[in-house]
Amino acid sequence: MCGGVGGAKLALGLERLYGDAVTIIVNTGDDFEHLGLHVSPDIDTVLYTLGGRSDLERGWGRAGETWQFMKALHELGGETWFQLGDLDLAMHVERTRKLRAGVSLTAITRDVAAKFGIAATILPMSDDRVETTVITPDEALPFQRYFVEKQCKPVVTRVEFRGAERAKASDAVIAALQDPALDAIIICPSNPYLSIDPILSVGNLRSALKQAQVPIIVVSPLIGGAAVKGPTAKIMAEIGVPATSRAMAAHYAGLIDGIIIDESDRADAATLDLPVCVAPTLMRSLDDKIGLVRTCAEFAMQLKTQAQTAGGTR
Amino acid sequence: MCGGVGGAKLALGLERLYGDAVTIIVNTGDDFEHLGLHVSPDIDTVLYTLGGRSDLERGWGRAGETWQFMKALHELGGETWFQLGDLDLAMHVERTRKLRAGVSLTAITRDVAAKFGIAATILPMSDDRVETTVITPDEALPFQRYFVEKQCKPVVTRVEFRGAERAKASDAVIAALQDPALDAIIICPSNPYLSIDPILSVGNLRSALKQAQVPIIVVSPLIGGAAVKGPTAKIMAEIGVPATSRAMAAHYAGLIDGIIIDESDRADAATLDLPVCVAPTLMRSLDDKIGLVRTCAEFAMQLKTQAQTAGGTR
Repeated sequence: MCGGVGGAKLALGLERLYGDAVTIIVNTGDDFEHLGLHVSPDIDTVLYTLGGRSDLERGWGRAGETWQFMKALHELGGETWFQLGDLDLAMHVERTRKLRAGVSLTAITRDVAAKFGIAATILPMSDDRVETTVITPDEALPFQRYFVEKQCKPVVTRVEFRGAERAKASDAVIAALQDPALDAIIICPSNPYLSIDPILSVGNLRSALKQAQVPIIVVSPLIGGAAVKGPTAKIMAEIGVPATSRAMAAHYAGLIDGIIIDESDRADAATLDLPVCVAPTLMRSLDDKIGLVRTCAEFAMQLKTQAQTAGGTR
Repeated sequence: MCGGVGGAKLALGLERLYGDAVTIIVNTGDDFEHLGLHVSPDIDTVLYTLGGRSDLERGWGRAGETWQFMKALHELGGETWFQLGDLDLAMHVERTRKLRAGVSLTAITRDVAAKFGIAATILPMSDDRVETTVITPDEALPFQRYFVEKQCKPVVTRVEFRGAERAKASDAVIAALQDPALDAIIICPSNPYLSIDPILSVGNLRSALKQAQVPIIVVSPLIGGAAVKGPTAKIMAEIGVPATSRAMAAHYAGLIDGIIIDESDRADAATLDLPVCVAPTLMRSLDDKIGLVRTCAEFAMQLKTQAQTAGGTR
């Protein structure tokens, strides 16, 4: 399960190591309608990253991207706070057209993944709309207004997932979680509040996770008590939670069987009351990513063996 | 009144010479929904031409255009028979968004014209949908399918303007035609069947034209019995009409007070039973365009004087 950039790095390692045995369940709480187009930022980040089309320097969007559309849109007085590249636009226009024609986001994503030559299965968490909404002392901000337009500056008091009470995980997501061949469930190092919680807000997805008879592990997105990218630590401070491995584990209490924390947070290990694995979690190179995937796999197998020995379940 | 490229050339001359005293009524029968976007080819040609943004070499679209979107759309398996440039896309996306929000095509066009610094008033013939449909022996083709996808190759048996019976000219169009300051109405050298007839198919627009107390002149799009660009002569042959000035005048019989024909068709003048002006009508340079506008103005004034002397009306 993953969100955007950080999570997609581990997803890339998973896909490179395990190919079509991997299913990636992606957050769609960031999805929004912009300029009349349906934009799915996390789905696209995963598609571009696994499809070898992402801009590794900029950290988001497509390699070789150009901005002619934005230039002309500015000239026409259109909204320019959210950057849509010329290449990226094709995804939004074509997806919007298909959604309006009644094709599901799941089917559209599967089709693009195939065209991009991606072996792994990439699944939106739901075909229903869930809108991640950031509540600040002043207002309720749709996710992209908070994340892009206001650059995560407002103080977060809480996060709501509007529509979650009505949303269902797709059949494909449920089938993946109930697959007898499933070995482990990995929560990628994504922002727990903004990227993973939206996925967990989908009721039947959360219950399918709880029923899964395989280890669920989280890779903490914290490194030395800070996030590599994005507002994870800032939000933790704002909601009065220390940016520690312990707090991260507590956030997922009742769901996870183990946590992987970075070497720089090794001292946190003693404070944790669940299985912990200490490993380098910073992913710069593809080797870093694959290395972390191997760590995840070994840790999950170890948890599975322990559970079998103990005859226990979560 | 004008259609796309050929007509827009004279419109440019009119705007350069008379500025905000000019109103251009533009064909929207070519408008269509493509990839979920509302495309108005003739409106855009006029906006780009008068706004100094057209690609003079290619003859359509914007100068400095790039095609990244099309490249990415092709990769996604999208429809690529109709080329949408990256700069041009901003117009379609922003216009579609505004139309969905309830803004009229007339208001949207006025706004863009102002942003492009265009002095003339550019008016869509109607805010209602009229769909120019080309009837061939085999099928009924929406205009762009005929014009772009099939490159005008099918034989035309007739042209229909679907929706015309319900369409109304906008208040702005009617006001322009009833303006006491109106001096003349010029039908630009556009394709009569595909660009001007759709305008004339709008009932209250046609009756406002007939009621106007000023000369209506047409600049024949034929030069030496052929069209400079586009399928005018080909269609005339297919519907059994000779590609002559006489046939062109007959097409507009009951509507026009005079016709301007090219020097190369000078011999046709004797065959015409309405006032005729012979002049160079090929517009390569801006000077050519302004020269033809001066010819139109002089011819119209001459017709006005004659009508006043004769105490006659059309």
